[in-house]
Amino acid sequence: MKHTKVKDLLNGTKTLHEVKAKGWVRTFRNNQFIALNDGSTINNIQCVVDFENTPDEILKRITTGAAVSITGTLVESQGAGQSVEIQVTKLEILGDSDPEKYPMQPKKHSLEFLRENAHLRIRTNAFGAIMRVRSTLSFAVHQYFQEKGFFYVNTPIITGSDAEGAGEMFRVTALPFDGTPRTEDGKVNFKEDFFGKETNLTVSGQLEGETYAMALGQIYTFGPTFRAENSNTSRHLAEFWMIEPEVAFNNLADNMDLAEDFIKYVIKYTVDKCGDDLKFLEQRLLDEEKSKPQAERSEMALLEKLSFVMDNNFKRVSYTEAIDILKSSKPNKNKKFNYIIDEWGADLQSEHERYLVEKHFKCPVILFDYPAKIKAFYMRLNEDGKTVRAMDILFPGIGEIVGGSQREERLDVLLQKIADLGIDEKELWWYLDTRRFGTAVHSGFGLGFERLVLFVTGMSNIRDVIPFPRTPQNAEF
Amino acid sequence: MKHTKVKDLLNGTKTLHEVKAKGWVRTFRNNQFIALNDGSTINNIQCVVDFENTPDEILKRITTGAAVSITGTLVESQGAGQSVEIQVTKLEILGDSDPEKYPMQPKKHSLEFLRENAHLRIRTNAFGAIMRVRSTLSFAVHQYFQEKGFFYVNTPIITGSDAEGAGEMFRVTALPFDGTPRTEDGKVNFKEDFFGKETNLTVSGQLEGETYAMALGQIYTFGPTFRAENSNTSRHLAEFWMIEPEVAFNNLADNMDLAEDFIKYVIKYTVDKCGDDLKFLEQRLLDEEKSKPQAERSEMALLEKLSFVMDNNFKRVSYTEAIDILKSSKPNKNKKFNYIIDEWGADLQSEHERYLVEKHFKCPVILFDYPAKIKAFYMRLNEDGKTVRAMDILFPGIGEIVGGSQREERLDVLLQKIADLGIDEKELWWYLDTRRFGTAVHSGFGLGFERLVLFVTGMSNIRDVIPFPRTPQNAEF
Repeated sequence: MKHTKVKDLLNGTKTLHEVKAKGWVRTFRNNQFIALNDGSTINNIQCVVDFENTPDEILKRITTGAAVSITGTLVESQGAGQSVEIQVTKLEILGDSDPEKYPMQPKKHSLEFLRENAHLRIRTNAFGAIMRVRSTLSFAVHQYFQEKGFFYVNTPIITGSDAEGAGEMFRVTALPFDGTPRTEDGKVNFKEDFFGKETNLTVSGQLEGETYAMALGQIYTFGPTFRAENSNTSRHLAEFWMIEPEVAFNNLADNMDLAEDFIKYVIKYTVDKCGDDLKFLEQRLLDEEKSKPQAERSEMALLEKLSFVMDNNFKRVSYTEAIDILKSSKPNKNKKFNYIIDEWGADLQSEHERYLVEKHFKCPVILFDYPAKIKAFYMRLNEDGKTVRAMDILFPGIGEIVGGSQREERLDVLLQKIADLGIDEKELWWYLDTRRFGTAVHSGFGLGFERLVLFVTGMSNIRDVIPFPRTPQNAEF
Repeated sequence: MKHTKVKDLLNGTKTLHEVKAKGWVRTFRNNQFIALNDGSTINNIQCVVDFENTPDEILKRITTGAAVSITGTLVESQGAGQSVEIQVTKLEILGDSDPEKYPMQPKKHSLEFLRENAHLRIRTNAFGAIMRVRSTLSFAVHQYFQEKGFFYVNTPIITGSDAEGAGEMFRVTALPFDGTPRTEDGKVNFKEDFFGKETNLTVSGQLEGETYAMALGQIYTFGPTFRAENSNTSRHLAEFWMIEPEVAFNNLADNMDLAEDFIKYVIKYTVDKCGDDLKFLEQRLLDEEKSKPQAERSEMALLEKLSFVMDNNFKRVSYTEAIDILKSSKPNKNKKFNYIIDEWGADLQSEHERYLVEKHFKCPVILFDYPAKIKAFYMRLNEDGKTVRAMDILFPGIGEIVGGSQREERLDVLLQKIADLGIDEKELWWYLDTRRFGTAVHSGFGLGFERLVLFVTGMSNIRDVIPFPRTPQNAEF
């Protein structure tokens, strides 16, 4: 007899027939009630053991974490909180779990302890819920773009290009540190490295993605990207997943429309599919915040916050307007900001973004038309000669979740920018070809996937929304 | 007025209304007929220019590769091969393409030339078709697993574990080659590296995936993996995408069922969605093979071959049976194989796999129960003590497309295997925990995505089915 998933058993309406379930014991109460979970859902199925007719040596092995196979009759449950349960007729221990040694005891563990046991934390309710939500969000991303006729593109992870300019890069090499091949003048001879040149891990697939958008029209990437930056914060990872759509003929306004529509779609899809997991995460957050002073607690519960984002327009504000708001804001006047805003051109810090989103507008904000000087070379220069068609989407509690722009499509302007920055244009010959041959207006953005998962799950540390986080001094597992 | 995608225009039935299209000129015939493509489909829309009333300086700029915006009336086409066309009323050149310089002329280019122009080859019919098929196959992968209740897991790309054993690894480092930090005894001090230890690019997410399967039940990965092997062949890449499902409670037979069902599903999905692209690729293959001697041509056309795979059971053959077949085969007796099979235990070479698939069975073959000595440490030892529950799926023209196994779930057997191989069990503490706590039968496999794309597109070099291939001495773009 094949076993049935717990999710399907719990959804089953046909009782009084024989079923088989396999999974892991979450708890075993009164020598009688097994809460069995198999990961298919956050909910356990209750299995009632006939303890009087079960040998003691078996009962002793029904411990938290043990893998069991259970055969029995599916019946309507007498207890509260579940519709059906299994009256066990046969129980087999597949794999024991020594309660003296099993790290995941049925009690509350600290998130820090769970991070050190990232291979086992997935067996807890919270991490099961987080990772099912993450999986569903991933699929929503693909479904959104595929439904709209976008093509998925796998841009390279190992890159010979160092002009992406999005941050510090990790070196990828097959050369040894001892006896490194050298050229006659003593430099490392990268011609002898695997790829015959210096290579790094990508920080963005955008430039390659643009070449595909200028042929397929609408494309998106969804893959890992890397930053070798020593940022030991709750918002940064050295390895994270990024989504980068790029669309030929889209201008900045189209780009904002796409980003907003996309975010609302994937959140709605996930709320529709992951109700039980999100309800659990909402309660987890409420419990966590009970220990905080009232002022630091979220104004909205998790599901209310997600509805708010789905149901309201993101506020679109130019950088120039934002600077005016910030300049005359209380924390600026009272010098409560660490970085006082006193003139146009200043780069916005996290504290300013949070003020705009959380205090001033109290909703997601799209900032656009930033000063050219604080943004990347490939962004479209406005007619004013000093701002570029950039946009950042800022979310409450998260800060920047999207960064995008209309791209500079004019070859001469782009060449000048590159020259001003001292980038060798030969490095970017292929990128420049998109402007040499059949150039056109186009736009795109990057969304850090883990920040989206943070927002949807209500977690506060980015290390808790990716299975095996990579951060400075940490590449365990 | 917003522009409409070419795909939607061609599917449109409502004629005699004004439309706008944007795209790139594929050809311009008789100073009158533009074949316009925007990447949404392999098909071009014909745009008929009123050349008598269009200035010569505009007509001259309608060249292959130029980006144009076209407004006009959608009408039933007079010509053969298309149902509708646009009678142009307004034409705007968005971006020129100098015909003296544009590399992608409307003629047949060699695949080698196109590889050197990987940023522009996507503008050809063949590569547009290949990459649309690749995108559709990717989505089919996600849809298959999500429909079946699998969860998508992002296993780490940067790994501190070197026990995966699937091949040579690339080093990831932030340490410099000049002035490398050293310990007192002169060794490289990896404690000063970014992660505080030696790190590499992953060759497989399986081990981490297993920890997730033993909690969520059914999981899959789909991400980049790496091999630092100097294999300059048409079947190997240094960076490629792999799909790795892992299922708790599945035995080897379940694993074979899953792999076969999965492959058939994604091929069917793609055949259903990409008819025009596959028809083009079928014709391309026929044309290519015309120059070959009859004996080297494919026995089936592309779509027929795909139907054959969808409609027939994969042949399941034990390694022991396969050895018997090979031993008594003509090429073995006549010493035509480079490696003569004379005894049980021999590792099968590509020539043997191809013989089995292409000459003997003439269908996809699943080989199983391999000698333990030629397979990885984590595979389940059979009761005979000499074979393991491994399976490889072999495809005509491709060779191995899937490698999988039931995993060794018994802690004592696994510890012995690890000790025999001289692997430090401390390296794998977290992996071994899955056997210490609630272990159970489980199985999984890996499918090299590019090999699947090769098979479905009928291409013969793996560098032509990934946007920017990484191979020895090549990391351009």
